[in-house]
Amino acid sequence: MEEKAPLLLTIAVLGGTGKEGKGLAYRWAKAGYKVLIGSRTPEKAAHVASEIMEKLEGSSSLVGTSNLEAAQLANIVVLTVPYTAHRDTIENVKDAIKGKLFIDVTVPLVPPKVTKVQMPAAGSAAQEAKAILGDDVQVVAAFQNISHEHLLTDEDVECDVLVTGSSKEARTEALTLVEAAGLTGWDAGPIENSVVVEGLTSVLININKQYGSTHAGIKITGVKK
Amino acid sequence: MEEKAPLLLTIAVLGGTGKEGKGLAYRWAKAGYKVLIGSRTPEKAAHVASEIMEKLEGSSSLVGTSNLEAAQLANIVVLTVPYTAHRDTIENVKDAIKGKLFIDVTVPLVPPKVTKVQMPAAGSAAQEAKAILGDDVQVVAAFQNISHEHLLTDEDVECDVLVTGSSKEARTEALTLVEAAGLTGWDAGPIENSVVVEGLTSVLININKQYGSTHAGIKITGVKK
Repeated sequence: MEEKAPLLLTIAVLGGTGKEGKGLAYRWAKAGYKVLIGSRTPEKAAHVASEIMEKLEGSSSLVGTSNLEAAQLANIVVLTVPYTAHRDTIENVKDAIKGKLFIDVTVPLVPPKVTKVQMPAAGSAAQEAKAILGDDVQVVAAFQNISHEHLLTDEDVECDVLVTGSSKEARTEALTLVEAAGLTGWDAGPIENSVVVEGLTSVLININKQYGSTHAGIKITGVKK
Repeated sequence: MEEKAPLLLTIAVLGGTGKEGKGLAYRWAKAGYKVLIGSRTPEKAAHVASEIMEKLEGSSSLVGTSNLEAAQLANIVVLTVPYTAHRDTIENVKDAIKGKLFIDVTVPLVPPKVTKVQMPAAGSAAQEAKAILGDDVQVVAAFQNISHEHLLTDEDVECDVLVTGSSKEARTEALTLVEAAGLTGWDAGPIENSVVVEGLTSVLININKQYGSTHAGIKITGVKK
């Protein structure tokens, strides 16, 4: 009888040269996923990919390329860009991600008032993504509240991940990736609830400012999984 | 030298016959505040006031009356009504709370989809209150995520209180009341951030539903006070 090779999912991290993207790429590569780091500058992406490979002593599969190629070659596409690049990046890769799972990590901060929740007209960055991508793509919002500092280390992250998204199936798939990254995730409901999670980042920045901390987070209490 | 009597603040809890209001009234009366329980039905308010007095063995000051009279006689006015009664109750007491601190506990749930965030046009219930009350009243949003079950007991509440509001002074004053109720509070920023805290209630209801819990809450992590 022929043995089946395990199905290896490929995750594209668009904007993966940024701190948050790099941290997530590191965690998923470490967990055994094939990771494509996408960037507007493929050379930078290739550099970050080899940096992470080195950190993992070559035991992982990471490739750096353009955002578009990364999106084309992946099964799951994760977006970690500053909000100013959100719409353009999604429109650029739109055709490449039909039928795939799209995970939006973007926080729609509006400098200089980053401690004040200021959502786009669509309601949230994730809902804006969904409006651009249409019915062919399941959109999930996740990881907005995690400090990137912790992702590149192997220490426990003392902040849970609230996962909202356009279907229960999509949220469940994203929750698998949350766990693979060594984090605790929660199904936080429909994509309309992403306003809470994206906005929570401004609340946490405000708490950092008021109480002199650098990485305020949240934990869900009162629930046993 | 004449001794000054301590300044005794009076808190009105409008809708104080409901579970959340009753729990808060209990906690504040226990902490030594004079509490006025307001209700559309003053007899019900009087009954709840005497119930709490009994629980505290008469050592406290609680009076039940109408929402309007409670608002007139108090220094601080707290609103704990279902969202359907939100606008009417505020308009009813508007003139009585000029220059006072107004704390809105209302969560704008829209049944039957209470797991989905559905904010009013103003952005949140608290912003709606601010729009009705105008510049004469400082509006704070707080206590939306606390299960009422815990308030009437003396056990520790494993859920923090995120306090947003229209000025830092108002938030600081509200944080004093949070602590007086035996809870941990955080300055969560301007009133625009109330969408996060009010919406978080839908997220927590969704988590309760998905994970079979009854009182999911949140704790802020990574910050030392």
